[in-house]
Amino acid sequence: MKNDKAKEILKLGLPKGSLQEAALAKMAKAGFNIQVSSRSYVPYVDDEELDIRMFRAQEISRYVEHGYLDCGITGHDWVMENGSKVHEVGEFLFSKVSRRPARWVLCVPENSPIKSVKDLEGKRIATEVVNLTKRYLKKNGVKAEVEFSWGATETKAHELVDAIVDVTETGSSLRANKLRIVDELLSSTPRLIANVDAWKNPWKRQKIETMALLLKGALDAEALVGLKMNIAEKNLAKLLADLPALRNPTIANLSLKGWVAVETIIDEKIVRELIPQLKAAGAEGIIEYPLNKVVY
Amino acid sequence: MKNDKAKEILKLGLPKGSLQEAALAKMAKAGFNIQVSSRSYVPYVDDEELDIRMFRAQEISRYVEHGYLDCGITGHDWVMENGSKVHEVGEFLFSKVSRRPARWVLCVPENSPIKSVKDLEGKRIATEVVNLTKRYLKKNGVKAEVEFSWGATETKAHELVDAIVDVTETGSSLRANKLRIVDELLSSTPRLIANVDAWKNPWKRQKIETMALLLKGALDAEALVGLKMNIAEKNLAKLLADLPALRNPTIANLSLKGWVAVETIIDEKIVRELIPQLKAAGAEGIIEYPLNKVVY
Amino acid sequence: MKNDKAKEILKLGLPKGSLQEAALAKMAKAGFNIQVSSRSYVPYVDDEELDIRMFRAQEISRYVEHGYLDCGITGHDWVMENGSKVHEVGEFLFSKVSRRPARWVLCVPENSPIKSVKDLEGKRIATEVVNLTKRYLKKNGVKAEVEFSWGATETKAHELVDAIVDVTETGSSLRANKLRIVDELLSSTPRLIANVDAWKNPWKRQKIETMALLLKGALDAEALVGLKMNIAEKNLAKLLADLPALRNPTIANLSLKGWVAVETIIDEKIVRELIPQLKAAGAEGIIEYPLNKVVY
Amino acid sequence: MKNDKAKEILKLGLPKGSLQEAALAKMAKAGFNIQVSSRSYVPYVDDEELDIRMFRAQEISRYVEHGYLDCGITGHDWVMENGSKVHEVGEFLFSKVSRRPARWVLCVPENSPIKSVKDLEGKRIATEVVNLTKRYLKKNGVKAEVEFSWGATETKAHELVDAIVDVTETGSSLRANKLRIVDELLSSTPRLIANVDAWKNPWKRQKIETMALLLKGALDAEALVGLKMNIAEKNLAKLLADLPALRNPTIANLSLKGWVAVETIIDEKIVRELIPQLKAAGAEGIIEYPLNKVVY
Amino acid sequence: MKNDKAKEILKLGLPKGSLQEAALAKMAKAGFNIQVSSRSYVPYVDDEELDIRMFRAQEISRYVEHGYLDCGITGHDWVMENGSKVHEVGEFLFSKVSRRPARWVLCVPENSPIKSVKDLEGKRIATEVVNLTKRYLKKNGVKAEVEFSWGATETKAHELVDAIVDVTETGSSLRANKLRIVDELLSSTPRLIANVDAWKNPWKRQKIETMALLLKGALDAEALVGLKMNIAEKNLAKLLADLPALRNPTIANLSLKGWVAVETIIDEKIVRELIPQLKAAGAEGIIEYPLNKVVY
Amino acid sequence: MKNDKAKEILKLGLPKGSLQEAALAKMAKAGFNIQVSSRSYVPYVDDEELDIRMFRAQEISRYVEHGYLDCGITGHDWVMENGSKVHEVGEFLFSKVSRRPARWVLCVPENSPIKSVKDLEGKRIATEVVNLTKRYLKKNGVKAEVEFSWGATETKAHELVDAIVDVTETGSSLRANKLRIVDELLSSTPRLIANVDAWKNPWKRQKIETMALLLKGALDAEALVGLKMNIAEKNLAKLLADLPALRNPTIANLSLKGWVAVETIIDEKIVRELIPQLKAAGAEGIIEYPLNKVVY
Repeated sequence: MKNDKAKEILKLGLPKGSLQEAALAKMAKAGFNIQVSSRSYVPYVDDEELDIRMFRAQEISRYVEHGYLDCGITGHDWVMENGSKVHEVGEFLFSKVSRRPARWVLCVPENSPIKSVKDLEGKRIATEVVNLTKRYLKKNGVKAEVEFSWGATETKAHELVDAIVDVTETGSSLRANKLRIVDELLSSTPRLIANVDAWKNPWKRQKIETMALLLKGALDAEALVGLKMNIAEKNLAKLLADLPALRNPTIANLSLKGWVAVETIIDEKIVRELIPQLKAAGAEGIIEYPLNKVVY
Repeated sequence: MKNDKAKEILKLGLPKGSLQEAALAKMAKAGFNIQVSSRSYVPYVDDEELDIRMFRAQEISRYVEHGYLDCGITGHDWVMENGSKVHEVGEFLFSKVSRRPARWVLCVPENSPIKSVKDLEGKRIATEVVNLTKRYLKKNGVKAEVEFSWGATETKAHELVDAIVDVTETGSSLRANKLRIVDELLSSTPRLIANVDAWKNPWKRQKIETMALLLKGALDAEALVGLKMNIAEKNLAKLLADLPALRNPTIANLSLKGWVAVETIIDEKIVRELIPQLKAAGAEGIIEYPLNKVVY
Repeated sequence: MKNDKAKEILKLGLPKGSLQEAALAKMAKAGFNIQVSSRSYVPYVDDEELDIRMFRAQEISRYVEHGYLDCGITGHDWVMENGSKVHEVGEFLFSKVSRRPARWVLCVPENSPIKSVKDLEGKRIATEVVNLTKRYLKKNGVKAEVEFSWGATETKAHELVDAIVDVTETGSSLRANKLRIVDELLSSTPRLIANVDAWKNPWKRQKIETMALLLKGALDAEALVGLKMNIAEKNLAKLLADLPALRNPTIANLSLKGWVAVETIIDEKIVRELIPQLKAAGAEGIIEYPLNKVVY
Repeated sequence: MKNDKAKEILKLGLPKGSLQEAALAKMAKAGFNIQVSSRSYVPYVDDEELDIRMFRAQEISRYVEHGYLDCGITGHDWVMENGSKVHEVGEFLFSKVSRRPARWVLCVPENSPIKSVKDLEGKRIATEVVNLTKRYLKKNGVKAEVEFSWGATETKAHELVDAIVDVTETGSSLRANKLRIVDELLSSTPRLIANVDAWKNPWKRQKIETMALLLKGALDAEALVGLKMNIAEKNLAKLLADLPALRNPTIANLSLKGWVAVETIIDEKIVRELIPQLKAAGAEGIIEYPLNKVVY
Repeated sequence: MKNDKAKEILKLGLPKGSLQEAALAKMAKAGFNIQVSSRSYVPYVDDEELDIRMFRAQEISRYVEHGYLDCGITGHDWVMENGSKVHEVGEFLFSKVSRRPARWVLCVPENSPIKSVKDLEGKRIATEVVNLTKRYLKKNGVKAEVEFSWGATETKAHELVDAIVDVTETGSSLRANKLRIVDELLSSTPRLIANVDAWKNPWKRQKIETMALLLKGALDAEALVGLKMNIAEKNLAKLLADLPALRNPTIANLSLKGWVAVETIIDEKIVRELIPQLKAAGAEGIIEYPLNKVVY
Repeated sequence: MKNDKAKEILKLGLPKGSLQEAALAKMAKAGFNIQVSSRSYVPYVDDEELDIRMFRAQEISRYVEHGYLDCGITGHDWVMENGSKVHEVGEFLFSKVSRRPARWVLCVPENSPIKSVKDLEGKRIATEVVNLTKRYLKKNGVKAEVEFSWGATETKAHELVDAIVDVTETGSSLRANKLRIVDELLSSTPRLIANVDAWKNPWKRQKIETMALLLKGALDAEALVGLKMNIAEKNLAKLLADLPALRNPTIANLSLKGWVAVETIIDEKIVRELIPQLKAAGAEGIIEYPLNKVVY
């Protein structure tokens, strides 16, 4: 029995390095607690149906494509760079502050004469995403030399090459290096991807889908908060009419005659505008509380 | 359109150094996510109407007074030391553990003959708050030399000067240096202060007030928790009568006949005394949950 | 008055070192905020009835037994190793990931001929728990030399001694050192222990019991989450019948006719299986929220 | 006996902070090994005639002037800023890489209209050296407001003030902040300074002078190296004539007829030019060795 | 004048990352003091004729080949991997402990059936040196898939690929991962390389050669020590005959009749065997001293 | 052949922890370069005849006694505490600053009534050296309880026990804890110890003695420096007569008539007194240089 059961294992790849901490934290919020040990390359996870491996984000899509992994979390950019044939299960936004995607952009020094991709003809470009860049040039009918950069690409634009293709989130590192963005090649977010065959296996697919559902629930919950308040019944209709943000609230009767409790889930970003309005509309005892997961 | 809008910017100063981490965390709880970058002296904030600068707490009131900043968070002590003419919007307590204000105290070695401020006549005092100390001496009719101390003031009291004026929260550092407190000059807490002209500008004032409301809601929430329990309706009246701490509870009917759910917000500090009493009064399924913000 | 009151102090010992951070975090969740200062060996706690001391986990039971401490948190293993006569108040699980107890195991190199404790006759064993090991050998009628190991015990099994008795949680460090577990001597979890006389003192006992109740409430809450959802009344009975995990839910009437809000507290571990089932059963707006304390 | 002897103590102040590590290393090279303990504000030194205190460089000249210290190592800048009346015993260069003095410079944003000190009339200047700056303005007949900056002065020049007076060694931090140097107020190097009365005390003066001699010997040795080579006697005259850098070499007879050993002390900076020339001139077996101290 | 002079600049590339600290330390021993600042990508060097850039070791040969750099220090392995056409000026050993070259080796799991390169036919190999590996396979007439590994290559040999080509110095990391070395592809040491055109420019070539001479002098000196001793003249001949390691000693007459001073430079590694022998041969007052540079 | 040779291995134990860095540095100065890897418990050493293991200083003497190690470096204190029967080869002083031995002292609170060991009758003592303490009490005819302290012993003297036996070098930690030294039990320095049988093996003994000779040469060299100066021949006799510290100088003739070079090795501690005297006696061009090893 146990042996049969033991065969049902899902191999999941998670990214090492800059995305690692965020990926592990999100998995924990989704309900999968993972412990990475310096002694072993196999992390511990409190789900016997999962077998986890950590790789550089750049490599995961390749191993998912080859079937060494059933599924993995990696950036859309590296799926594209590697040209991996995989099934994309879902998209997730990890970064709390900006929730902005990573952008791969073509940059030149602020005072460079290069104004568009067309001006790159015959030039030299340094980048970590050689394939993406070559495809982009081809699409634009431009011939230029593309060389692999092992890092610190933004420091090379001033002396060593004519342009770079680098990743940025807020653009501040580019500005600090006095670079100008000429074009955007790709906007990338973290994805859960699956091996094509694994996706056809019913048990694996269900396991992956459940994981995606929980992960989505956890990530959605980061951007949302619970809001609860008491209000006189007579003011309720106007409150709901004026504040469409309070969509589908749960309205519970209170023992205090004429009063109800209104509870809803809203985007944390609008709380700072909403609270003064709620007070103005007669709401009392407004409390905001954190959520672990939200599944509609 | 966009240009007109772009003019409506509030410049906010936040303290660097020891208060920095707390200030950023509280702002995040209030709904303003800020990212400080080593590459830029302008932090990123996810509110386009805010423009944030980080300064030493000692300097903020001066820049608010001069109008370089519209408002700022700093300690009451440095507003007083600088003698800055600013509008005080609100007071906030940051420290979770003690919630005690910082105290600027006059100290001497344990075995010093100095017993009161009067004994300082003709003596030498080292301090970081030269102006506060001079005003204090003047008020007490004492003439003494006050010199600026660049730090580690508490080590100077034994050899270099006759007394010091230093800041303490719990007094433990003073005791470790065998110093005795003679008098307290000032008790200080963090404040949100505004430039006098900015406060007269309706848009800026509303923006500042909203920020203060959310910050207060977030800080209040740190000291409070949500408490929920089920109780038989027949026991409810006695429960509420005996436990005045449960002020203004929300009482919801349950489908189980004869039972109600009682929910309230209380000071976290009294939970440890309250829970045993609630159990004794017949409450069941007591749960305590965290809050992000509380606005009455 | 105050003086009489001041006599009612409970001396609590907390573990330094590897357990320290967890112990302080759990105490904070229980409502006791503690600040450890490098300047003083007496930590600050926001409860005037508590006097806290930090010791190595190995030493606490001895000081509780002697009465220098009224109570303390330490591992069951060190109570046993020291043979301390103390009252055990409660057991607590600290580690979020595995919630597995620490196990003291007899180990030998993978390729050692030793297969059972009987094979240790005349051998040499290195361990940090000399007394536990001697008692274990005696119980098994085996005579062997036991020597105290000052640390890094697992590296000694291959060259210096024939076997070791070492502590492990997941066994990964043992595997990395190519060691095989022969037997388990003791499984240990953190405990709250009390001095026998302190336990007879009504004030101290009540104080200890309250602390244990709150600590248990906080630890239980770590493994539990709140779950809330809306469901049509007609689907409710089936939902509850099919999902016994939803024991004792609070069911509140909503103003929307025919719908109720179901709220319950469940083990976080089953959420990942439960949520897909809830959706299938017709639940909507499912949210999971964190808990600080749960007291049934 | 011992008591009389015990009175002959020299109190020496050394700088904390950025200069601390260098100052302690140089003292060690001079033969005075000092151990700073986090437990005590009195460092240990292996010379019973010395009593060492650590202060911020800004404060040392004041305490030397007042006589709390007999002598101290601090920057010339802070002696001048404090206007301290002390005896300057010697100047020392600490930094190996550049051996350039610290320069206090008047800076403005690159694109500021301010071109000279005269353009500061009526402006506002931020600086850590308020007194130096005021004296400089007065000397130039300019009236401007000078305010004390608590740090990060270079970030203030763009928004908060019109100009700053800041310290720089290589100017790279100024360039990174897009600032332009308008004028230099002061060039500063570390100094050994003495209290005027201590300098009149023969024992103290001799102790200070010996310390200065050894410190100078140690610092000189950092910029120098020993160079040794063998050369045929017939080539010696030409070698010495052509290479005046080899001043005052020690020439020793070797047992090998017609050969001598030439040994000298030279500036490390010229070694990289000299060695190829020495080889060309017939020198063999050239070795360069490090020196601890050099006293001419 | 200055402008003409300013044109004579040598652009030198130094490796970032694991080789960086060693490279900067060796340059300093050679007489070139370099300061890397986080604020600027152009390091400061105390030689106005040098212009330094830091790159990943992997990239330097490419930039030297292209002429962006006149010369650079990098590993022989990356010159080969990149297939860069550059002039090799000299070889240097950086590591004090082992002075062993880095070896790129073909590895498989200990229990793999692969015994030689021939067994790789149709297999998959992960490596950071894709070109080197492909050339190696071609030379051996083997067809296999080679994929680029972004790091942690040694963890991939057990599951993801059939073999890896990885770098090792002592082999301990390979053993820890239970890998077996099948073959060695390349043995690599740090090299000073020059651009072909720069090498033809007389000024640049002389500057590079001087730098190489000094660097070699500094590196040689690390493996050597000075040894000095006194010996009676009558024992001298036998000492020199018996100990050929004392090649070309400098023998100086002492004023003490019948005694001479013997001084020589020897390999530090043989000192531990030599000193007991010297004592036995009648040498007295043996001292060993460190060297900065040695140029024969 | 190689196999026979391979049997001649000396197993050396070195201390982990606080002594580790110093022990490895001293071994390197003696000519044995050791590399400790986190991946392996067997350090690499560049001498194939040595096999090194790292243990806690407390354990080494036991493993030397049992023969698992042929020799080891550890403190005299732990040899005594363990009562290990080993051959002591030599004593070494590691600490540059104080060169003072570690002292195990009996301490009590400053205001304790305990004035001598006799006052300990019936008291309780905490210590890390239980055996040493019991022997000391027995020797003094005192009966007291001795309990093992797992660390931070000095904090226990005020509340938990009546006295402690703790280790101190400068006494500053004891003073900071307001403890008074009652008596000294043992003064301890690092020792090279050998297993009794290994010492009888000629090859091992010679290997150990060579290592001891080199280690002593390296440690002696730390306290010594080379001093070289030129002096007119006519002043030489007086110089040598007046300065007996210049024992056995090497006096070499210079080519400059009437001048000699005087070179000697002296204790670094007296340099600071000697240099002014040398100058006064007519010495010129005095240089001090560092030594690696000194073997008389």
